[in-house]
Formats: sequence, C-alpha cells, structure tokens
Amino acid sequence: MRRVRSKQLGCLVALSAAVLTMPGATSAQSLNDVKPARKPLVLKALGSLILGGRTVVASPSETGLYGGGSLIVDQMYVQYMIPDRARGTSIVMIPGGGLTAKSYETTPDGRMGWYEYFVRRGFPSYVVDQVGRGRSGFNQIPFNGVRAGKLAPDTQPNLRRSASEVAWTRFRFGPAAGVKFLDTKFPVEAALQFAKQTVPDLSVSPQPDDPNYTALSELAKGIMQTVLIGHSQSGRFPFEVTLRDPEGISAIVAIEPPGCKATEYSDAEISKLSRLPILVVFGDHLDVRQEFGNSWLPFYQDCQNFVKRVNAAGGHASMLHLPDKGMFGNSHMLMEDKNNLQVADLLIDWIAKSIQEPQAKMSSGRKIRQ
Amino acid sequence: MRRVRSKQLGCLVALSAAVLTMPGATSAQSLNDVKPARKPLVLKALGSLILGGRTVVASPSETGLYGGGSLIVDQMYVQYMIPDRARGTSIVMIPGGGLTAKSYETTPDGRMGWYEYFVRRGFPSYVVDQVGRGRSGFNQIPFNGVRAGKLAPDTQPNLRRSASEVAWTRFRFGPAAGVKFLDTKFPVEAALQFAKQTVPDLSVSPQPDDPNYTALSELAKGIMQTVLIGHSQSGRFPFEVTLRDPEGISAIVAIEPPGCKATEYSDAEISKLSRLPILVVFGDHLDVRQEFGNSWLPFYQDCQNFVKRVNAAGGHASMLHLPDKGMFGNSHMLMEDKNNLQVADLLIDWIAKSIQEPQAKMSSGRKIRQ
Repeated sequence: MRRVRSKQLGCLVALSAAVLTMPGATSAQSLNDVKPARKPLVLKALGSLILGGRTVVASPSETGLYGGGSLIVDQMYVQYMIPDRARGTSIVMIPGGGLTAKSYETTPDGRMGWYEYFVRRGFPSYVVDQVGRGRSGFNQIPFNGVRAGKLAPDTQPNLRRSASEVAWTRFRFGPAAGVKFLDTKFPVEAALQFAKQTVPDLSVSPQPDDPNYTALSELAKGIMQTVLIGHSQSGRFPFEVTLRDPEGISAIVAIEPPGCKATEYSDAEISKLSRLPILVVFGDHLDVRQEFGNSWLPFYQDCQNFVKRVNAAGGHASMLHLPDKGMFGNSHMLMEDKNNLQVADLLIDWIAKSIQEPQAKMSSGRKIRQ
Repeated sequence: MRRVRSKQLGCLVALSAAVLTMPGATSAQSLNDVKPARKPLVLKALGSLILGGRTVVASPSETGLYGGGSLIVDQMYVQYMIPDRARGTSIVMIPGGGLTAKSYETTPDGRMGWYEYFVRRGFPSYVVDQVGRGRSGFNQIPFNGVRAGKLAPDTQPNLRRSASEVAWTRFRFGPAAGVKFLDTKFPVEAALQFAKQTVPDLSVSPQPDDPNYTALSELAKGIMQTVLIGHSQSGRFPFEVTLRDPEGISAIVAIEPPGCKATEYSDAEISKLSRLPILVVFGDHLDVRQEFGNSWLPFYQDCQNFVKRVNAAGGHASMLHLPDKGMFGNSHMLMEDKNNLQVADLLIDWIAKSIQEPQAKMSSGRKIRQ
C-alpha cells in the first residue's frame, strides 16, 4: 500500500461529468467498437444449461399470466465454452452484485474479456448468472402478491442497483463521479456502456442456505477439477461452496470480496479451507474514502488476516495485491480493466503453480467432463 | 391443416404428470446430458454488447442501494458469434415472451440450438435478450416506489410467467398438462429443464414506441444484410422494426406470431413490407383448443391472410406450415424440438432462395461488419 498513499488525489483528471448524469437518450456503443481477436477461436463445444431450482405452486395472480400452477425458482443459468485442445482444469466465473456474466465477456470498450481469454489459454470455462438475476430469472411471487394487495408493500424485496455516479467511486474509477484517477486502468471512456451492464439485484447474500451455493456445488461436481472464481458480492462464494462440499473444486479465487471473515470462520472451517490453494486478489486505490461507507482498505486488511490464518493452519493461501506486482490503477472491475488479460495471466500462473493439472480427458467420449 | 384434424386427441400417451406439479427440490439436467458436436466450431469472433437505453435519474429509495443518481433502463443485451468463414448474410434471433436467448442455445435435452447451428452453417449470428428481461435488466423504479409506499401497489407492472402446466398446452407439447401428443417433437422428457428457461416478463408489447424496436434497428444498421427472426410475442417485431426503418434488414421471419395484423396494417404499411422477403412459420397441432384462450388456428389463419395481402401488393411473403412439408408434431418451441436443425435447414434454404447473398466482407479489417 506504499505507493497508493503517496499518490492521493493530486493526480486527477476531470472527465466530462455531464455524460454520467444527463437524462434522456444514451448513445450506444457501436458494433464497430468491438475488436475481434486476430486468431480464430477453435471450440470443441459451447452451450448452456440451467442447474438447481425448486418448484413452487403459484396462484393465477402470482404467475400473472393465464392460470396458476408450478414455477421453478432459484435456478442458475450457466454458459460454457470448451476449447478444442483443452487443459485438464476448468474455470468457473461468478459475477458480482448487480452484475451478470457480462462482466466476464467483451469489456465495455470492446476488448476481449476473461471468459474468451481463459478459453484461448486452454481452460474449459463456465460463466453463470447468479440465482435471481439475468437469465437465471427471479422469484416474482412476492412482487405479484404486493400488486394484488395480498401482501404489504414493504414485504417485497428491495431491488438494488448502483447509480452510475455511485459505482464510479465505489468501483474506484476515480475519487468523485466523472473524475478519474490519472492512472486508472478502467476504460472510463466507456462508462456508459458499463452502466448498461448493471441489473436489479434481489439477493440478500450471503445466506447460509443460499441457492447459489447448491447450484455451484452441482456445477463443480459435474465438471470436476474446477477453479471457482468469485467477485465482489460473490467473492466469498468459492469459500462457502467449498465449506459445504469441496468435491470437484481444485482451487478457489476471491476477487475483491467484501472481507474474508478472517475472525468469523471457525477453526474447523479454516482447517477445511486450508486443504485447497486459495488466491485473494485486490486492485489499486484501496484507501480512497467512499461517499457511502468506508474505503476498501478494511476488506483488504481482513483478507490479509485471513490469508495468514489459513497459512498458520497449514494452508496455501496467497494475497495478490496488484500494486505489489507493479500493476497500478486497477479498479474494482479488474476483469474489464485495460490490463485485464495481464491480470488473468497472473491468475493462470498461480493456477499452474498451485495445482497439479490433470491430463486432459477430452478425447475419451462425447461428455463434457474433461 | 388436413392431417391435423384427422389426428385429434386419439393418439395421446400419458406422461407422468407428477413431475410437473411436485413442489420441492427439482432434479437438474446433468452436465453429462449435454451433447457436444463432433466437429470443432471455428469462430472469427464472439462477444457481447449492450445497445440502446436511456438514462433516468433515480432517488435513493429507487436505486435501493447507497445513494440516488443515474440508471440506464431499456437497454438491450446482444451476444454474437462470427464464424471463421462467414457468409455475407447475418441472422438476428429474438426470443419470445417470458424467455431469454436461451431459447436459441442448447435445447432442454442437451442438443445443439439454432444459435450454434446458424453459425456452423456460416451465418454471423446474434441473439438478444428483450428489453426488460434476462441480461438486459429491467426498470426497477416503479417496484421500489411501491415498496417505499410512494406509489399504489397496483401501479407496479405485472410480472408474468407461464406455469409449467399452462406452457405445456399453450406451447402445444400435448392437449393437457403432462399428456403429450404421440408425435410430439418437443423433448417432453426435459420439460423441467424447459420450465427453468422461463423468466418473469414485464413487457406490455407491442407498444408503438417499444424500445426493443429502437435497439433492434440499431443492431440491424450496425450489422447490415440481416435476417431478423422473431418468435411468439416477438414474432411481429421484425415487421415493426422494418416499418420504422428497413435499413440493414434483408429479410424477415416470424415464427408463430400472435397473428400478423392482416387487416390492421394500412396499405402504406403493407406496401413497405412488400419490399422484403417475408417468411411466416407455424408448427403442428394448431387446432387444439387451449384451456386459456383459443387454439393457435386464428393466428395461423390471420397470417395466411397477411401473406396473401402482401403478395397481392407485389410482395414476397411465404407461409411455412411444417405439416405441409411432411414435418409433424412440432410445438410452439420449434427451435428446441427434436427436429430443430431440420427446421433451421428449411429457413436457410428459404434465405438462400429469397435474397441475393453478398460476398463475405470479413477479410477487410477488424470490424464485425460482414
């Protein structure tokens, strides 16, 4: 954290704040802004499926369409790509709060995202939409109950979405809305495109029985030899899934989680987590005070303590604080930052070093298991 | 329609209706049910972007998180794949009501969907989530207004989703929930996986100023030489987009739309539509009476009249009623039916016959324009 403090707010460049706050029509990213890679992408397979879920019986006013009957809720939508020449280790990427798997696709300014990059580096890769968000859908029943006058309005879940100006500072594009850090790696010129990525978030997580954990566990067991990567609100999901059932999980990565529960996990839990390689990743400008809440520093410090505690228990945890590697200006959305592929390379180096990668098993049949 | 009537309900096989209505845990499709293709898929590019949208200013209770500020609503999420050796014509696929682009991906029983298939047949292909659904997100402001007691509960949009039992008959898997048509092409054994594909639908379309039309028009202009394919609730979207601005659109396909407005379109509108090749597609069992509303027959008949009216105005419209081609048992979800790729072949034959396909322009630069 040395360098961060010496920089402070002296090195700021004002961006036009008007684009962030102007109501009305929004100019869209053009298709021509999207930059395809130079080499073709050769896939053995790609596709999608939907895991988990439970069936509930809804009344006609709850379904809101035709008649009542069964609805499935709490399911998880999963997309995957398997490269033609696949490694034995797979990657599962979980988006953060208010975001979908779009986080890991084409960046707001049209560059390659982590999903494609991990595939190009040989990893069978899976991205998910969290339960209750994006293509996973959400449970509409409480909302329609309020609409029908059967439930009190305040029983309806709060639909949360960061305003663009709030995201700007909380995601550390700069110290104030529309003002960027001089060294920011976030493509702030495409901030409007980023704002379009956010969707209403109904989640009240982490919950002990979060259906995301069940679905992710099922996914890991179906794939085997998986590295689970969580981000922000889902940063600790890999820990929580592992604590419930480590089967299928080879290593876990927490990107900028809201702390690591360094003092909250029991010794038994730390012991369980110490059996797997763990990487925690944080970007730059962690000490900049937020308008809402603290800076990111307490989360970073809690995760440093977590890493120490896991290692003291015989574990294999590491902290990757990017400025310590000479990478400056990374935001909270580091998978979309301009050096996103260099950050991915650090993760891939860590994976190669930390786990014994099995031989690829792709040739043995028609199954996706690798 | 000859054959349909002679079959009626005599040829039905009862499926276990219990799986449809049983509350509680739902067994998920296994990853091992997914069947990859035999040949690798070679892509020049793939990715996603978000088009359209407008910025609104929300209060803290409306954003539901931290403070108030700007939110973008009415944007459209788009995913695309460009094959390595691309044709000059592109395909845009729009899902139907309560569904996401998942409709065009891996089928509920794990077979290849249209999205991958059109790419394998050489078409740069685009799938979208409708505005207000899936990864496009939705406008949460009216909901949070009700929750905060600032708006009356009944001002909140109705969230619509077909119960599994209702979808079974309305989507023509069979004449009653859990009972299949003997010749059904829908993978009814994976009906639970299909039920997981449906998401809450806030749309009140068609509206004259539907933001889907704006975003689709922008997409077509960005791609050029596009075939727009709509389905069910979005079945007439290609007509409506064309009427507003035909630029970039080469041909339009309406799959089982809720009628074709045969008598509602003005002569001027019919004249505009007569300048493009138009294909309307319907599956089988159109005359089976639904529990809610009529059979599909009136929609089919209205579209037959539409085709006649367009052609009388000098146009190039065709009706593809699959039983007339010897393909029986197709459901409303014909892009997921067991003969889905054969149906796609009919569309591709029609495209090849109906439009002058331009030379591929992929080699000229880094742009996606083809």
